[in-house]
Amino acid sequence: MKLVLRVSYDGSAYHGFQYQPNGLTVQQVLTETVSRVMGFSCSVTGCSRTDAGVHAIGFCASVEPRVPTGETLGNWCPIPLARVPAALNASLPRDISVTGGAMCPDSFHPRYSVVSKEYKYLLHDGKYPSPFMRAYSYRLKHPLTDLSISKMNEAARPLLGKHDFSSFMASGSSVETTVRRLMRLEVVREMDDVVAVYARADGFLYNMVRILTGTLLEVAEGKLAPGDTADILASCDRERAGRTAPACGLYLLSVDYAGAVIFD
Amino acid sequence: MKLVLRVSYDGSAYHGFQYQPNGLTVQQVLTETVSRVMGFSCSVTGCSRTDAGVHAIGFCASVEPRVPTGETLGNWCPIPLARVPAALNASLPRDISVTGGAMCPDSFHPRYSVVSKEYKYLLHDGKYPSPFMRAYSYRLKHPLTDLSISKMNEAARPLLGKHDFSSFMASGSSVETTVRRLMRLEVVREMDDVVAVYARADGFLYNMVRILTGTLLEVAEGKLAPGDTADILASCDRERAGRTAPACGLYLLSVDYAGAVIFD
Repeated sequence: MKLVLRVSYDGSAYHGFQYQPNGLTVQQVLTETVSRVMGFSCSVTGCSRTDAGVHAIGFCASVEPRVPTGETLGNWCPIPLARVPAALNASLPRDISVTGGAMCPDSFHPRYSVVSKEYKYLLHDGKYPSPFMRAYSYRLKHPLTDLSISKMNEAARPLLGKHDFSSFMASGSSVETTVRRLMRLEVVREMDDVVAVYARADGFLYNMVRILTGTLLEVAEGKLAPGDTADILASCDRERAGRTAPACGLYLLSVDYAGAVIFD
Repeated sequence: MKLVLRVSYDGSAYHGFQYQPNGLTVQQVLTETVSRVMGFSCSVTGCSRTDAGVHAIGFCASVEPRVPTGETLGNWCPIPLARVPAALNASLPRDISVTGGAMCPDSFHPRYSVVSKEYKYLLHDGKYPSPFMRAYSYRLKHPLTDLSISKMNEAARPLLGKHDFSSFMASGSSVETTVRRLMRLEVVREMDDVVAVYARADGFLYNMVRILTGTLLEVAEGKLAPGDTADILASCDRERAGRTAPACGLYLLSVDYAGAVIFD
């Protein structure tokens, strides 16, 4: 059995989720904490790398004890499942929080079992910068009008569905396929001074949400027309899409495993 | 003339607003930044001390050049008023932001001209701790039910009006009078996992909002009955009121000068 954790973290102090030779990562802190709390060495696998400064609300990670190969593990967790989040939170730094635990069969994999993932990207467009949003949003110089937001949504529509998204992938990335199915790309005003871009897909290419956001912002700024996104998509040319919005506005919101993981 | 600034700050990194011999304060940073941007030495006076870790959204501070006594100042500010916030924000650290500027007569004083001040205190009662609220709220172990919130509001009601609030002042404080007029004390659920306590008065005693919040929480927890607050108030005994809620949940929300300061 694998223990699956739902994890929320403020990415400001971390070099992303995944182990890095130089720089503290969420995976390193989680692995050390879980091993200490369980009382034996554990390995932690995440649902995604995230870049330095990117945040997470519903990140999923699996935990397994490091034991001799072939040993049957069964339910090895020495802590009752319902008390796992509190036990780990008592030892984790305050910028990482476990918000759910579940036991899953060994066949479950936090990355390969994903059906879809959803991100949100927060834009702050208040008249003045906010000390409370500085590490948690991308600050815009000009407010987004209702008209700008509806243009962004118009530009988003042709991108929905199954496409080759290589125009929206950081150049130099290598992946087997650049085809992804985008199920949601929507711009919503959430507060007087905060606009969110929601993106859900069966998978994302490197920097894809940040480039999608940067492209929609260039539509709002009038540098691109709403109708341009279909051509940009078809061109498979990263140069034609917009800029990469900064990491600090991005949140991994949730991961859908089609019912394979049920947190209490 | 005095330049009046509206200031928002994340108090996490500061030893409060007011100068301290040991420890960085918001006043020190503001004074240094304003003097550098104006091109001559300025003094900054705040509307209130705030404790270490307390935040502000609508703090007010006045700015005057330090010049030989008796010199007529007139409008000494070398920067057009409308551009003062942006000019200062370009030089301030990102956890302090100027959100308005106004010119006022010399008779204006950010502390003595106050008609009323409003604070809010944020309580986080989600099932799990949130990395994003950790420095910006007081985390409760148990969620506040609708019934608890209405008991807190019932307990708040007898405190409204003009009273001696010495039961709700940190012991050892020395002030001329402990009589204040409390105009608002209200508990409101703001989000699924965030409850706010709003307090407006013509002035506050040392730690008053934090002790009022701690007392209302003890009503929610059943340690005090809603009817107890009238007796606690009448007793003028700090020992009878509840605990002092921690600084990180407190925000100075706004200062009312009855129209004497108009920010654009």
